[in-house]
Amino acid sequence: MATSQAMTQKPTDRVNGLDTQRFVETVDAVKHDTTLARFEFRARNQWIGGMVTRTSVQDFYGAGAEDRSRAEPFTFTSSEPPVLLGANEGAGAGEVLLHALASCVASTAVLHATARGIRIDSIATELKGEVDLRGLLGLDSAVRPGYQRITVKMAITADCSDAQLDELLQAVRDHSPMYDSISRPVAVVLERVA
Amino acid sequence: MATSQAMTQKPTDRVNGLDTQRFVETVDAVKHDTTLARFEFRARNQWIGGMVTRTSVQDFYGAGAEDRSRAEPFTFTSSEPPVLLGANEGAGAGEVLLHALASCVASTAVLHATARGIRIDSIATELKGEVDLRGLLGLDSAVRPGYQRITVKMAITADCSDAQLDELLQAVRDHSPMYDSISRPVAVVLERVA
Repeated sequence: MATSQAMTQKPTDRVNGLDTQRFVETVDAVKHDTTLARFEFRARNQWIGGMVTRTSVQDFYGAGAEDRSRAEPFTFTSSEPPVLLGANEGAGAGEVLLHALASCVASTAVLHATARGIRIDSIATELKGEVDLRGLLGLDSAVRPGYQRITVKMAITADCSDAQLDELLQAVRDHSPMYDSISRPVAVVLERVA
Repeated sequence: MATSQAMTQKPTDRVNGLDTQRFVETVDAVKHDTTLARFEFRARNQWIGGMVTRTSVQDFYGAGAEDRSRAEPFTFTSSEPPVLLGANEGAGAGEVLLHALASCVASTAVLHATARGIRIDSIATELKGEVDLRGLLGLDSAVRPGYQRITVKMAITADCSDAQLDELLQAVRDHSPMYDSISRPVAVVLERVA
């Protein structure tokens, strides 16, 4: 099977490590049937004790079907450092959010660079997020519990001009799903179930 | 050292796996010096190729000092499934965000339950987030790139009434840093550096 598949497949064009033919096919498919664009991502989490919880991620819905590509779930342990009553059993929730944002702005840059024919050499980002613990602890209702500000400094090198890189960064601000989810309000519904 | 420390330490009261004495001391310290409440979390991310990036998390500032409690960084690989042009090298950015939210609402519930003297038996959450790929791909400017809606179903059992659990869930909505960061806008500054 693998051999015959390899023999009948055309050699793949890869730009920035992406299969450009598949990329074009994906965009065309979504253009022709917008229902293929609907995705539902999922996660399950369980409290272990203290500040420690464990998250499992495996199935999702997208491109018109339940995805079956993952034989095993991804699992993550989160906790907090001692100063926040944990014992560093895992990264903290606030740090995990920065990870989500970091990976999203980088991969969005890669997608939009590829669409523009820009070949990227490197992307490295540094993120900082400020939070005031009084919000979490309920000590001052004027202090929000969440991030007051997040800065993302992106160093990016590619075979294009600085002006094109600036335009690419604007595309990231406009199209990164996690940049959007954090910088603009998302309807989050938290409800208790039996 | 360990023996003499154990001998001089008072036996710790633990509720929900948390050191309640330390918890009270933390709240008191922040009340007396609000600058101790200021935290800055950090992450570094590097593009590996295609949709694959790697994030490293270690140092942060909080409680008036640079934290030195982590000898090694936490590292995470993120990618996407084949239908989103990756090869499942790691969970996707959207799933990582759900993980951040899940761990935060659970640990916030534990903190506020402990403050109320509620002993929790179990917390399990299921999260679903809807996103439309047309936003990421820039195919329709009326479609936001990020989550359109996230639902969090929390099953929680504890030594208290249903009314107290409902009140606890409201405290989570009001005080969870990641619930706040996702449901309300955060100032995110993305800039290019040399």
